[in-house]
Amino acid sequence: MSKHLLDKPLSVLSLGVATLDAGASAGGATLAHLDWQPAGDGDPELSWQLASLIGDPDDPDCAGSRVDRANAEAVSRVIAAEPVWVDVALHASEVWPDMGRTLLHAGPPIAWRDMCGPMRGAVVGAALYEGWADTPDEAERLADSGAIRFAPCHEWGAVGPMAGIISPSMPLFVVENRAAGNRAYAPMMESGGAKTLRFGAYAPEVLAGLRWLETVMAPTLKAVVTASPDGWPLKPVMAQALHMGDDVHNRNTAASLALLRWVAQGLVNTDIARSEAVAALRVMRADDMFFLSLSMAACKATMDAAHGVPHSSLVTAMARNGVNVGVRVSGLGEQWFTGPADIPVGLYLPGFSEADANPDIGDSAITETAGLGAFAMAAAPAMVQFVGGTPQDALRYSRDMATISVARNPGFTLPALDFIGAPVGIDVRRVLDDGMRPVINTATAHKQPGMGIIGAGIVQAPLRCFTTAVAALAEQCAQNDRNESAGSAGRR
Amino acid sequence: MSKHLLDKPLSVLSLGVATLDAGASAGGATLAHLDWQPAGDGDPELSWQLASLIGDPDDPDCAGSRVDRANAEAVSRVIAAEPVWVDVALHASEVWPDMGRTLLHAGPPIAWRDMCGPMRGAVVGAALYEGWADTPDEAERLADSGAIRFAPCHEWGAVGPMAGIISPSMPLFVVENRAAGNRAYAPMMESGGAKTLRFGAYAPEVLAGLRWLETVMAPTLKAVVTASPDGWPLKPVMAQALHMGDDVHNRNTAASLALLRWVAQGLVNTDIARSEAVAALRVMRADDMFFLSLSMAACKATMDAAHGVPHSSLVTAMARNGVNVGVRVSGLGEQWFTGPADIPVGLYLPGFSEADANPDIGDSAITETAGLGAFAMAAAPAMVQFVGGTPQDALRYSRDMATISVARNPGFTLPALDFIGAPVGIDVRRVLDDGMRPVINTATAHKQPGMGIIGAGIVQAPLRCFTTAVAALAEQCAQNDRNESAGSAGRR
Repeated sequence: MSKHLLDKPLSVLSLGVATLDAGASAGGATLAHLDWQPAGDGDPELSWQLASLIGDPDDPDCAGSRVDRANAEAVSRVIAAEPVWVDVALHASEVWPDMGRTLLHAGPPIAWRDMCGPMRGAVVGAALYEGWADTPDEAERLADSGAIRFAPCHEWGAVGPMAGIISPSMPLFVVENRAAGNRAYAPMMESGGAKTLRFGAYAPEVLAGLRWLETVMAPTLKAVVTASPDGWPLKPVMAQALHMGDDVHNRNTAASLALLRWVAQGLVNTDIARSEAVAALRVMRADDMFFLSLSMAACKATMDAAHGVPHSSLVTAMARNGVNVGVRVSGLGEQWFTGPADIPVGLYLPGFSEADANPDIGDSAITETAGLGAFAMAAAPAMVQFVGGTPQDALRYSRDMATISVARNPGFTLPALDFIGAPVGIDVRRVLDDGMRPVINTATAHKQPGMGIIGAGIVQAPLRCFTTAVAALAEQCAQNDRNESAGSAGRR
Repeated sequence: MSKHLLDKPLSVLSLGVATLDAGASAGGATLAHLDWQPAGDGDPELSWQLASLIGDPDDPDCAGSRVDRANAEAVSRVIAAEPVWVDVALHASEVWPDMGRTLLHAGPPIAWRDMCGPMRGAVVGAALYEGWADTPDEAERLADSGAIRFAPCHEWGAVGPMAGIISPSMPLFVVENRAAGNRAYAPMMESGGAKTLRFGAYAPEVLAGLRWLETVMAPTLKAVVTASPDGWPLKPVMAQALHMGDDVHNRNTAASLALLRWVAQGLVNTDIARSEAVAALRVMRADDMFFLSLSMAACKATMDAAHGVPHSSLVTAMARNGVNVGVRVSGLGEQWFTGPADIPVGLYLPGFSEADANPDIGDSAITETAGLGAFAMAAAPAMVQFVGGTPQDALRYSRDMATISVARNPGFTLPALDFIGAPVGIDVRRVLDDGMRPVINTATAHKQPGMGIIGAGIVQAPLRCFTTAVAALAEQCAQNDRNESAGSAGRR
């Protein structure tokens, strides 16, 4: 550095580590520090792996260009999806006749002994509900004995809110993706707030509520939806809801009204007993979140159609079991990439604090995976009264998530951002490249079973899900290259 | 001006008339022109009158301070209003037994010969509907003969959309302001778009639609609302709708859904025949604007309670008859202050243009008068797809209207503007002081009767309404002062 330069007033732009800033400041320099770190979470090997997956317009055969093309295909399936509510399965065992003593749960795989409080409570409740046990102690012993099989909802084509427990007797919404022909399933939202199985409660009134869903609500809704020859197309409803202040994850006020309107109209046309119709409408009327089950099933049916595109780095599932967050990637088969679940940052109901909060839980982040929820939060400024922050934060999440998304969904537009499409299709490469983790808005559960919702907030999926996914994809691509080389060598 | 000053490079700030700008520019000056004019629309006498009405904190007895206090009282009644849907009058003649051959119409008073096309068509339709005439020609001759009495809806405690014709047989929503005890009335929205009486159509199917409202919809809704002991409080619905993308003037999507939800629930509990219930629900389900009648009646019940506060310069009605816009002021009795109606600026349906448009028409600007509609348009960014402009315009209208409003309504908050209350209570003094006219969003009617809606847009009330109101208020205050002086002189 020339003496000449140092004679003049110095302006320093400092990137990354701040070690040298103090010296520059002490020397009288004007200092601007940019918070930056190299892509790849500071891991040189991972950085190389990430670099090996970046597309090159001049080299369509390189691994990254193949990933780009695969992602374009995968996200086109997301955008083309046509989820339609077509049926209600009166019992999950109709959908999966071999279910036996299986309980499905939210998030990536987890063993009974590792489950968090709310999920353990929900398992106990489900065992009581199914008559597998007569007391909570007996239910716990049954689970201890290994007599209950556990599997993630996601691996069975389903999604469940919070603990996400689905047992054989429970009714399910059935959503078909007309564009791809696949189906997805979600349990019905119980009313009753805290005292619900999804928060781990299993008191008699909780089980009575489940029984009512099974015996009254489910047949009622089944009669309505099956009386409609084309079912109920969900995409227009969700698109309209985005223009009415919903994000269809933690705000479903408009979509639930639309659902009620459709069901009310249908009910009058069916032969459902008036008392049951009244009861069903009353419960739906009281629950602004009732649509969430359909939103989740629609997103699951959408994202499953995008799964299995070779080489694609698109996230097709992002789910939390209350201990870990798991991510699945279109081109990486059935594997889960996991990291520890964080506690949401947001608002608490009076009397509760972060000390009471369970880490992030539930399959409802399938909405963010499909480009809704926090990704579309610019549509839902009023939601910040529930999850905290400001309307500007809501706009920012939608803007930021475009950084890590492959496309914008022309079917889901955001009025407050000049009707631009919501960002859709998380690319694990972009997450790692920018160090920007997917944002999820979420209800916060008490860590003790059955205490229910204690608040709501914002959480981000852990980076580890994405570092391990990138490493796996890079390894897969490298393996492919080696195989191809070997193949062409063999042919030589 | 010293020679010294002119020697240096000159920067000129020019206010108002631009006559001198050219000379300054030619002289090499940097010029900034501020578009400004003195308060009072350039009329010196009016400016003095306006000045005489400005409050002075140091002089609580001056006219302006009295006006300020009166406005605080008037707007407090607006904010305290509790409009509740309590009943349906099966026929307008129940509300006004002496109605006889009267037709109520939108806007300020207007004679039959001066009415615009859509209003003339609606008069013909109403005469046919009432059986006062058998053919359109006969109906016109009847009107020509003076045998029909015309009166503004507003003067009878009612409000009507577009042409706003209310005839004795038509059913009316009845809304009670529980805070003040007064009631307001509005006709039901006809379905059928263009082919509706409110746009001046009178074909047989239009009259059949009116008959259906009278004989099926009205009794159905009356059964529902009268079965509810407390009626249906509208303020919470409207407040919630603002958080769901409505402005409750030209966007009522969420509020109409809420209405449908309430009616559907109520219907199941009444003994209304299933076929009629189905038909009523179907019509309501198809019309996202059905709530507008209730919104208008709620706003009318609100603003009537604020009318008649001595000295108040608060606007309590702003209504258009398709020729003139009329304004009523709380402290100025029954007088209308009018100006020529403009043609809305906005979007047209394919095949139509400004050449086809009728000037601004309808009583629905009662929503803006009550601090909703365009005043709350920050809540409804998606509406710009209907009225034109951008979501930023929607934010701007809500910000701008605060300039001419007395208060913010804590009951109607705007999420996109950090949940600030919508501006409420137009002060005629402020309009004149800033030259900023109230913004109204509106459907645009074809100027020929029965052609229906041809677009939608934004319009501003003419300044003349406010200049004449300010002059009248100043004259009233001056007269009061003279009377008081005379009174105190007499006592001396």
